[in-house]
Parts: sequence; structure tokens; C-alpha cells
Amino acid sequence: MTNPLSSDQNRTPITVIGLGPMGLAVARALLTHGHPLTIWNRTAEKGDVLVAEGARRAATVAEAVSASPVTIVCLKDYETTHELLVPTGDALRGRVLVNLNSGTPAQARAAAEWAAAHEIAYLDGAIMVPPPLVGQPGSVLLYSGPQDVFERLQPALACLGDPRRLGADPGLAVLYNAALLDLMYATMNGFLHATALVASAGVPATEFADLAVNWFMPTVVMDASLVEQASDLDKGDYPGDVGTMEMNLNALEHITRTSVEQGVHSDQPRLMQEVAEQAIAEGYGGNNYLAVYEILRRPATT
Amino acid sequence: MTNPLSSDQNRTPITVIGLGPMGLAVARALLTHGHPLTIWNRTAEKGDVLVAEGARRAATVAEAVSASPVTIVCLKDYETTHELLVPTGDALRGRVLVNLNSGTPAQARAAAEWAAAHEIAYLDGAIMVPPPLVGQPGSVLLYSGPQDVFERLQPALACLGDPRRLGADPGLAVLYNAALLDLMYATMNGFLHATALVASAGVPATEFADLAVNWFMPTVVMDASLVEQASDLDKGDYPGDVGTMEMNLNALEHITRTSVEQGVHSDQPRLMQEVAEQAIAEGYGGNNYLAVYEILRRPATT
Ligand SMILES: [Ca+2]
Ligand SMILES: [Ca+2]
Repeated sequence: MTNPLSSDQNRTPITVIGLGPMGLAVARALLTHGHPLTIWNRTAEKGDVLVAEGARRAATVAEAVSASPVTIVCLKDYETTHELLVPTGDALRGRVLVNLNSGTPAQARAAAEWAAAHEIAYLDGAIMVPPPLVGQPGSVLLYSGPQDVFERLQPALACLGDPRRLGADPGLAVLYNAALLDLMYATMNGFLHATALVASAGVPATEFADLAVNWFMPTVVMDASLVEQASDLDKGDYPGDVGTMEMNLNALEHITRTSVEQGVHSDQPRLMQEVAEQAIAEGYGGNNYLAVYEILRRPATT
Repeated sequence: MTNPLSSDQNRTPITVIGLGPMGLAVARALLTHGHPLTIWNRTAEKGDVLVAEGARRAATVAEAVSASPVTIVCLKDYETTHELLVPTGDALRGRVLVNLNSGTPAQARAAAEWAAAHEIAYLDGAIMVPPPLVGQPGSVLLYSGPQDVFERLQPALACLGDPRRLGADPGLAVLYNAALLDLMYATMNGFLHATALVASAGVPATEFADLAVNWFMPTVVMDASLVEQASDLDKGDYPGDVGTMEMNLNALEHITRTSVEQGVHSDQPRLMQEVAEQAIAEGYGGNNYLAVYEILRRPATT
């Protein structure tokens, strides 16, 4: 070991499998904090830079997982993980497996069941920042799985950023990951579509962005009321005393009409309009706009 | 006049036509600041409360607009405005007309042309807050039209909130209004859909809202980078060195798949996925996600 920080012999030895951009960032953060590190990647050369910094390269996956009490996988998907780990037989028994792949909640739960059947402690995780931010104090990583496993690993996981445990259901980390990205893309698309609307009249995006992002979003959209109103979602209570779904449908029809008139894409506002129309058809016309939640929480009927 | 604040005889007399919730709020704010006020509404009794506070009720629209140098209309739409004002003939000539109806940019421009043909100074406006916030210092009202007309009216308009002029094109106020509401609804729907995703695994909306609104949105989505990146939209420059459209399409496919798997509405993520697919089909696969702007700024091809 040539890493000057690796002298702390109390650091848990860790194996990292999968050295794409995210796996490399995870491995480097652990190495920087002095964790004895074993690595494996299908294309071995990807790990050269880590070996030069003190990591040990394993020749096989079985050798890699046997080298440490904790293995972190950063692979393309759950199928790849399954393919690589199943042939290792009992090598992981009694050890901890942390799965940082993206996937669906059902895949995460299936992986947890497989792990339980092989007496492997299992934690599922999702990294909410791009690789360059892994290891920064403010970077959030989401985890789900048993509390005791999370607590045991917390010092090691803290090397990667700020770890948050969401609950025992192993599917929660990837589900939150999908939900937060969903919110991000919807907001981005809303912003880009709104920018396209004003750009159709020659307004520069920079001018609109300043008004939209620095004033409108924080004061009108993202204020505390959204958090306060969330309890109405849990109760299914949508009082229409300040504004009704009918009024919001008028506004949405108006946005679709303006999009068509200005020659910009109109599918996005039209879909929102259709969801509001369905809410009214189901009797929510006198409720407030949050009642579209009742439509969005079920499969589309069309 | 019984209003104690109406003693300032320098306040411009103003006529307000249309006393729905928004018109009433506008009229009250002007009256509170001492503007001599004339009102007209199809259903005259709507103005009783204002008359009790010192407003003068006109018997006809022509009488109403003749009573003041400035008339503000707060009607249902531009058609209603046209219907009411055209029969007044020359009563508005040489006066100022401020139109606060919602409508499309083409309707606002047509109204401005009609006004110009009758030598009426015309300002189009959009109120970005609900009626109870009209008259509060932080409330934003957007205006478009001639700079000199806006400046002359600024003291009166300031009674309604914080007036912002967007430019000379009379269509800009309603266009910004549509764009900002578009952004608001897209963000709301993104939030509600994301909440539905985690709720499908039993997560309370309040718990998700706290993470999403208090941490994720401000730090990850709404940070300054969106304003900085807006200049790339103006340049049509979408460098893919940090992340590519192909990577974002993977994430969007993943969100759609998770929505289907969890039994929630999947049209919204699927539409975003289709827009990203179209961007890739048009050659933006190696660009960053903002390149979907090129798709959103044109009519949908389907
Ligand atoms: Ca995972
Ligand atoms: Ca208007």
C-alpha cells in the first residue's frame, strides 16, 4: 500500500466490482479515506490507475469478494450482477453486499431475496450525484435495507458522501432514485418548453431563465406550501375553496392553445390537460389541482 | 368619497370594468390607495361593496370609460372585451386602456391594433398571483406595450403589486403568463407523479415532499446552473462532455419501466422518453439533455 492515508488499520477492507465512471469514483473515494481496497473489472486495465494508488487487483470475481468483508457492486444492471455473482458460490456467505446498480424496485427486492437465501447481508443503494461529486460531503446517496447493516457500514459509506437510509424495503433506494429523476426531468422539460414558448416571440432564454428560476420557481412553485399540502395527498383531501380543477383546466387549455398558436410542441401541455379532464370526469372538478394525484397514482386508462 | 385615503387629489382617476374576483381585488387596491374609482359590471350588484367604500358606479360602459383617463379591464376573455368596448365608439379615444384579461399573444396583439386604430394608448398585462395577493408589495404583475404609457401609469400600477414591463410587443405579458404557468404545472405534475411512484411502496407524501422540495429541487434541479446553461439554449450549443442524451434516455426508459412496474400512470415519463428518442433520431444522441429544446421549440411531428 503506497497511499499515505491507508495507514489506519481500523478501516474495513472493501471490494469494488465494476469500474465504470461511477465504480471508479466510488473506489477512489474509499482508497482516499484509507480503506484497503480490492478491485475487479471485466476489462482489467480500467483498474490500473487504482492499483498504482494502492488497490489490489483480483483475478476473478470469487477472489475479489473473498478478499473483503464488504463488496460494493457498481455494474450496468442487476442482470450483470447476477451473472457475475451466482458462479462465486459460497464466497459471499456471511459477508455484506452493497448494490449500487440502477434498476427497478422488483429487481432490488429479487437481489435481496437471493442474498438472504445465501446468508449475505444486503444493502441496496442509489447515487444521486454524477461521478465527479462522489466523495464530496454534501453529495446524497440513498440506501435501503436492514438498519443494523446500514449502521455497521456507515463509516465506510460516509466516504462516498452523505448516506441516507430510507427504510427496510430494499426496493426503496431505486424507487426514490426513479422518483427524484422523474421530478427533475419533468421540471427540466417544463422549463425548456416554457422557454420555447417565450423564444417563439424572440425572448432570449437567459432573460426568461432569470425570471423563471430566480423569481417564479422559488417564490410561487417551490415554497413551503408544497410540503404543507403533501399531507392532503396522504389524506386524499383536496379542498377547492381557493381554486378548482375547472379553473386549472381553463389555464391548461390556454397553455395548449398558446403553444399551438406560437408553433411550439404541444404534447406536454395537452397531456396535462387530459389528466385534468380525466380528474373532472371522475368527479374532482370542484376540488383543487392536487386531485390529479388520484389519476397519476393509477395506470393510464387509455 | 368616504374613503379616508382618497383625499390625495393627485391620484389618477381610474375606471375598472369587470368585477369578478380579480377585478374586485384590482378595484379595491386602487381605492385603498386613494384613486378616484369608477366601476362597471354586467351584474351591477357585484360593485355594491365598492360603492359603499367610495367608488362611483357607471350606468353604461361608455359612461364608465368616459369618467377616467385610464380604464382597466378584467374580463373573462378578449371576445367579451371587444363586445363591450366597440359600441362605446370614440369614448376611449385619447385615453389609456389596460387589458388584464388572459388570452393568447395573437389576441393581445389584435387588441393593441384595434386600440391604435382608435388612438387609444394600450397596455396588456397579466396578474401572476391569486386575487387575495393583489395589492401586496411582492406580487408580480407583468406588462407589455409602449414604455412611455407604462411609465405614466407606473404609480397607479404599483398599487396592484410590483409591475414589470417585458417589452413593446403587446403579446409578451400573456405569453410569459402562459410560459410561467406551463412551468408551474409541469413541476407540479412531476412532483405529484414522483410522489405517486414512492407512494406505491407505502412512502407517505409528506416524507417524500420533505426530501424532494427541501433538498433535491433547490440543490440539484434549481441551482444557478440552469440560468447559466440558458445561454447554451440561445446559442443552440449542447456539449455532451458531462452527460449525453443517450444516458438520459436510459434514465427516462428506466422511469417509465418503474412506473409501469409500480402500477402508476406512465404517460408523462413516456412522453419525455419519446421526446428524447426524437432528439436522438435527429442526431443529438451525443449532446447533453438540453438539446430536447430543439424538439420542444417546434410543433410535434406525430
Ligand atoms: Ca441500487
Ligand atoms: Ca392580458
